[in-house]
Amino acid sequence: MIDCGEGTQIRMRQMGMKITRLGHIFISHLHGDHCFGLIGLISSFGMLNRTADLHIHAQADLEKILKPQLMYFSQDLPFDVIFHYINPRKHELIFEDRTIQVFTIPLKHRVPCCGFLFEEKPRDNHIIREMIDFYKIPTWRIPKIKQGEDFITEEGDVIPNKQLTTPAGKPKRFAYCSDTAYSEKIIPIIEGVDCLYHEATFMEEEMNRSNQTEHSTARQAAEIARKANVKNLIIGHYSARYINQNGILEEAKAVFENTVLGEDLTVYEI
Amino acid sequence: MIDCGEGTQIRMRQMGMKITRLGHIFISHLHGDHCFGLIGLISSFGMLNRTADLHIHAQADLEKILKPQLMYFSQDLPFDVIFHYINPRKHELIFEDRTIQVFTIPLKHRVPCCGFLFEEKPRDNHIIREMIDFYKIPTWRIPKIKQGEDFITEEGDVIPNKQLTTPAGKPKRFAYCSDTAYSEKIIPIIEGVDCLYHEATFMEEEMNRSNQTEHSTARQAAEIARKANVKNLIIGHYSARYINQNGILEEAKAVFENTVLGEDLTVYEI
Repeated sequence: MIDCGEGTQIRMRQMGMKITRLGHIFISHLHGDHCFGLIGLISSFGMLNRTADLHIHAQADLEKILKPQLMYFSQDLPFDVIFHYINPRKHELIFEDRTIQVFTIPLKHRVPCCGFLFEEKPRDNHIIREMIDFYKIPTWRIPKIKQGEDFITEEGDVIPNKQLTTPAGKPKRFAYCSDTAYSEKIIPIIEGVDCLYHEATFMEEEMNRSNQTEHSTARQAAEIARKANVKNLIIGHYSARYINQNGILEEAKAVFENTVLGEDLTVYEI
Repeated sequence: MIDCGEGTQIRMRQMGMKITRLGHIFISHLHGDHCFGLIGLISSFGMLNRTADLHIHAQADLEKILKPQLMYFSQDLPFDVIFHYINPRKHELIFEDRTIQVFTIPLKHRVPCCGFLFEEKPRDNHIIREMIDFYKIPTWRIPKIKQGEDFITEEGDVIPNKQLTTPAGKPKRFAYCSDTAYSEKIIPIIEGVDCLYHEATFMEEEMNRSNQTEHSTARQAAEIARKANVKNLIIGHYSARYINQNGILEEAKAVFENTVLGEDLTVYEI
């Protein structure tokens, strides 16, 4: 999960998500709309008798604020909350497992703030089921073949890997950039991602307010997407002054066509 | 406002309530579902440039938990948050203004917890508009007549108050009792209220769980309503195990007919 504003657990329940499957939470910065939902979510995990560790990746201050609340409201949690400190000013690897790597993206905001880049690791090739049957490939050979090995039959014939497998899909890359003023420094980091989420709090007509508060306009978000050659752009974090977001979407699309509006309770496939 | 769980400000916005009109918040006890919404609500007040003081009536521990959060997230609030400590073990007057008095109601829960009794003060009689015209009563006399004085005409005739006014409605009384196990000690305090809100977390079939967690069943809530001769009962705080509340309502109504289900986003007139 990236960020956790007030009501996050309510939204998750509305969407029928299994909140117990959540293992890692990445917090971009310590403004309320990005972290006030943590204490409620963690308390609910306690009541659901979660036992798996919960990892929170955030600036060190968050632990100072959250720990006393956990001590008071959730003394007897049946699981551990493990804090991992991140430095929002550095672009570095902060998490890695079998399938994914997560990097920080330094952003430009009123308080220290970073985005996150999620990169899938290359995946194994797909083995062609019919070939398993045809060449009677034993199960124990399959992992190696998926990783690129040829198959040698009992008769000593070499079946080239290319004939047995189809290539895996290209690993996907997703970048999340909120909250931030327009900053070209992020472009080399997010270059060519499959999907960029970039905040678009204001329209150009509110440029002054946008500069003051270190947010972006829809046009600026789209400029970043265009200059970084990303494939798709999702915008969001709209100011409450906009009753609907048609104007925001239009402004962004004029610069970068593959833009969609980020909306509540909506799933986007990358 | 009584209690302030996570998402309260979101619900208020959904209902089109003017959140800036809120002056006093009464917190029954320090469990998350009764106070996690405070920090978000107060932060939003700050962003809306509220200037009026905000009064929070709660156990002293709440200030200890909330103050560090306010210091971090809302240093420059343009208004004061004023804490008033309450002793949940005592039945006493904790707030009073021109129109209302608020008393604590000691409850029986796993942690110190109290309900609140809201009593309207007697209101002035209504003056009959036609009588003002008929006797040419000057405007400056009207407040005294509303309070019960007779009117003496220029000719010296005494017009008895009864002829000039109709009695004000009876002051209303509302009692809020959550969270609590069955406790007959509250009956003398809430005797005859126009409306009682009483928690009904479980049905009788879950009596064991109800006793363990010091909550009430629907039947118990209704027993309290019946024994205290209240006019109407609203139940609420249902366990998430009940997909719908038909059974809960039925169980309560069997004991106390004037029962309604407390439901989200609903207004009840007392």
